Amino acid sequence: MRHDRTRIRWNGWGWRDHTFDLRGRGDALWAYLAEALDVGSLPDTPAAALADVRLPEPALDHDTLARLAALTHASRVRTDRRERAFHALGRSYVDLLRLRRGAPPDAPDAVVYPADAAEVRAVLRLAAERDVAVVPYGGGSSVVGGVEARRGAHAGLLTLDTTRMSGLLGLDARSRTATFAAGIHGPDLEAALRPHGLTLGHFPQSFEFSTLGGWLAARGAGQASNRYGTAADLLVCANVATPGGELATRPVPASAAGPDPDAWIAGSEGTLGVITEATVRVRPLPARRTFAAYAFRRFEAGIEAVRTLVQGGADIATLRLSDPDETFFFGALRRVLSGGGGPSGWVRDALRSVGYGRPSVLLAAMEGTWAEVRGAGLRLASACVARGGVALGARPGRRWYASRFETPYLRDPMLDRGLGVETLETAASWTRLPELHAAVREALTGALEARGRRGLVLGHVSHAYPDGASLYYTVVFPREPEDEVGQWRALKAAATDAILDHGGTVSHHHGVGLEHRPWLRAERGEAAVAMLRAAKAAIDPTGILNPDKLLPDPAG
Amino acid sequence: MRHDRTRIRWNGWGWRDHTFDLRGRGDALWAYLAEALDVGSLPDTPAAALADVRLPEPALDHDTLARLAALTHASRVRTDRRERAFHALGRSYVDLLRLRRGAPPDAPDAVVYPADAAEVRAVLRLAAERDVAVVPYGGGSSVVGGVEARRGAHAGLLTLDTTRMSGLLGLDARSRTATFAAGIHGPDLEAALRPHGLTLGHFPQSFEFSTLGGWLAARGAGQASNRYGTAADLLVCANVATPGGELATRPVPASAAGPDPDAWIAGSEGTLGVITEATVRVRPLPARRTFAAYAFRRFEAGIEAVRTLVQGGADIATLRLSDPDETFFFGALRRVLSGGGGPSGWVRDALRSVGYGRPSVLLAAMEGTWAEVRGAGLRLASACVARGGVALGARPGRRWYASRFETPYLRDPMLDRGLGVETLETAASWTRLPELHAAVREALTGALEARGRRGLVLGHVSHAYPDGASLYYTVVFPREPEDEVGQWRALKAAATDAILDHGGTVSHHHGVGLEHRPWLRAERGEAAVAMLRAAKAAIDPTGILNPDKLLPDPAG
Repeated sequence: MRHDRTRIRWNGWGWRDHTFDLRGRGDALWAYLAEALDVGSLPDTPAAALADVRLPEPALDHDTLARLAALTHASRVRTDRRERAFHALGRSYVDLLRLRRGAPPDAPDAVVYPADAAEVRAVLRLAAERDVAVVPYGGGSSVVGGVEARRGAHAGLLTLDTTRMSGLLGLDARSRTATFAAGIHGPDLEAALRPHGLTLGHFPQSFEFSTLGGWLAARGAGQASNRYGTAADLLVCANVATPGGELATRPVPASAAGPDPDAWIAGSEGTLGVITEATVRVRPLPARRTFAAYAFRRFEAGIEAVRTLVQGGADIATLRLSDPDETFFFGALRRVLSGGGGPSGWVRDALRSVGYGRPSVLLAAMEGTWAEVRGAGLRLASACVARGGVALGARPGRRWYASRFETPYLRDPMLDRGLGVETLETAASWTRLPELHAAVREALTGALEARGRRGLVLGHVSHAYPDGASLYYTVVFPREPEDEVGQWRALKAAATDAILDHGGTVSHHHGVGLEHRPWLRAERGEAAVAMLRAAKAAIDPTGILNPDKLLPDPAG
Repeated sequence: MRHDRTRIRWNGWGWRDHTFDLRGRGDALWAYLAEALDVGSLPDTPAAALADVRLPEPALDHDTLARLAALTHASRVRTDRRERAFHALGRSYVDLLRLRRGAPPDAPDAVVYPADAAEVRAVLRLAAERDVAVVPYGGGSSVVGGVEARRGAHAGLLTLDTTRMSGLLGLDARSRTATFAAGIHGPDLEAALRPHGLTLGHFPQSFEFSTLGGWLAARGAGQASNRYGTAADLLVCANVATPGGELATRPVPASAAGPDPDAWIAGSEGTLGVITEATVRVRPLPARRTFAAYAFRRFEAGIEAVRTLVQGGADIATLRLSDPDETFFFGALRRVLSGGGGPSGWVRDALRSVGYGRPSVLLAAMEGTWAEVRGAGLRLASACVARGGVALGARPGRRWYASRFETPYLRDPMLDRGLGVETLETAASWTRLPELHAAVREALTGALEARGRRGLVLGHVSHAYPDGASLYYTVVFPREPEDEVGQWRALKAAATDAILDHGGTVSHHHGVGLEHRPWLRAERGEAAVAMLRAAKAAIDPTGILNPDKLLPDPAG
């Protein structure tokens, strides 16, 4: 248990002893946001204390708890308030709203921390025997309800926290693969590889708190996925403990032995079993890392630059193109927090003077050998300049890189001031991307206005592929105190409908969980849903694994 | 029906009006092989004529045939001897043995050629209604029994030939994707892309005769897969007609909406449905193509060169490293056919003089822009020379490229002379590869000797990945006239057991079909097999699709 749960917020983001540094400029920030959102002022909306959280009576009997302790260890079967509250929900906006009100809809009866795969198998056997639902839980950072405590119709609910299972189990440097216990956290995983001069290269925003098993189960993508691939790309093979026995895939580089079972594991979101071990592709630690940024007069020109680069095979680890509103907002935020008066600055002024009134800024991070980095930088410059990109130097990219795990900490203070803030994301072909970008913006803005609020809708392109790219949105808005959850559900539904109507996927890297489940049938079709449900039933016949997640209810 | 079936051999390889050019040196070749295989002489073993083939009485009644004709067209429901014999088996060695004896174990009652997806759906509905088994059939070039006429316990057997469905249905040049009717043959597909300056880059040895749907269904890999990816990598989305309705995936570049359904389609081998349309990733036609070859004193040194190149990200479309025996054999074959006396030649002499007595030769084909090709060539030279590789110039690679679709034609004349010849393949991590290479060689040689024969076992590495590569074997041996099939089954079993014992996969790109089915449980494990069987049952409840293929019999 490398991450002591008591050091992490149970109802917010990250380490308890760390907060977003407002540099004493909180009042200025709230005033700026109040004006931008067209509200008089921002209310104080503090979160409930842990002691005030309402938790249901635990349903597991003493005998089951004793058996769990015997199968693992007494210290690793937890029923205390903090553990139950901590594991009640994930870290989506709606999850935080409910935790902050002290009203999670349910909570696990107990949390168990198995030490190894054998203990996981024993716990699953007991759970199947006694009809106890099991929620596999890694970092718990799901933003789509993937780890929400749901018991379905089962007799009890156990959260199986995998983070006691960490460590490097094997390294094949010649084949560039490494095998880990799947509960390992990002920093521990990278620390285990570093002495060997290797890296996995998977850096989601949750990197510090999420686990290898979670990355794979949710089919995530890290910030450097253009170079290293998504979690599914990194997976060589895995061991998954299921109620129907072990699902173990083979460490081969490629195979035509029927449909790829690794592709059932990636994205299974704990509904098939618990990933206990995984072998992943690793690469040499980059010798160099450089940054560059370019401003484009139009968002579409930036998209074209990214498309050209990726289709041309340029090896640029991160390409993050903010739309005009996101570019504007992050500039304003920086200036407000640094004591400037508002949205101005000499770069902005210079750009405006050449007609780039509301530019879109592309941040690029290149890493690898000296030759790779230099080659990538030259290609980047060439593609951007050809589309009218104005070079902004290394600083904006370096600043983004330095603060990339810091930004999520800003959410809690915003939640304390009556604001709603959430992200959503999709991916589409290059051809549909501009239309999709506009449609999602309009859907979100329209849904906010229909409920009488003005919001900020900030978008960026990242995770680019030869055939398309992902789109990521951050939405900031004044909450409706009387219907916080309903307000977000309306926004989310409008955005997701727009996504599916305009050629996007319900998720590029957040997963399905509970949030996207209502749209899975629209995305996948009835036949695919039926196959997935049947495959699950074959190894989890009583459906104890992560009830209500991923799979939509049977068609009625 | 772009490929008139009457122009293609029903019991051998390729176009009927084309044969392997022995350049009048057939006798010398047979003498050379007789000596190499330690037999006095090679017997004449001609194939049975079509008129002498024994076919079972067709089991489909007139009403069903009339309904099929009404759903498609009278001219596209075929029950004649040639069509039934043509579609009775695939093109594996054992298939050819049985066809050449005029004794296929079964044959379709009828062959239907639907013109579009709607006709496929109608045919499947009728088949489900009347309990008729359906074998989806593209090019029919499966070498693992993937298209063998098997009816299981069903009332009839229909082969659904997809090749009437061809053509480019849509092109998104901006996103570099193209949508085809899935029965399109390789040359037609490339011809449709060429005017747009694009290529799919998928060139399996069966390229002229196999189809897009077949490539995807069998999870194949083309000769240039190092650059373009395998068939599964090329797949963006597909429409699959199943008895349980349409399985249609979405044209998005990436998604985290649960396990990837495209990865159920790739490798499904006709057991889930008929792929009617597929959208694939395309790339610009390469402006240049260059070749290079290097000789290594030891096979392992060549492997290390390939590993270094692929792990370093070198973009080399084809890297084909023959082991000493394959290098020797192809040199000898060339010299025998060109009138030389046997295994000698100045390159060989020169290599021998520097101590490369039985070298391993690496052929490389580079393609892309001028800069890409030049960069790849420099990296190739550097990696090879560092491992003691001696440059052999462009000619060996150019010769291989020119004859790459010609070699399969050599099998028929060999089968006419009492020889057995078959290929098999696998893939493993770089660490296991040398050991696996030796183990499979030994298993094949040992199994031949145990039955009193000497054979040639020729191996090469191709299709390389950062974490490993494929191994491909060609086995040439004198047949046991009294038990031809049993002889091969013994060789195959010995090789496959060795593969699984030494970290390989039962197939890197041939698929499972009937041949590898007995090993699928060993490769995948019971849980994966159970999931696959359940997923199939969900959309093909009566099991009419490609009976006996891919899935092993239930454990019991």
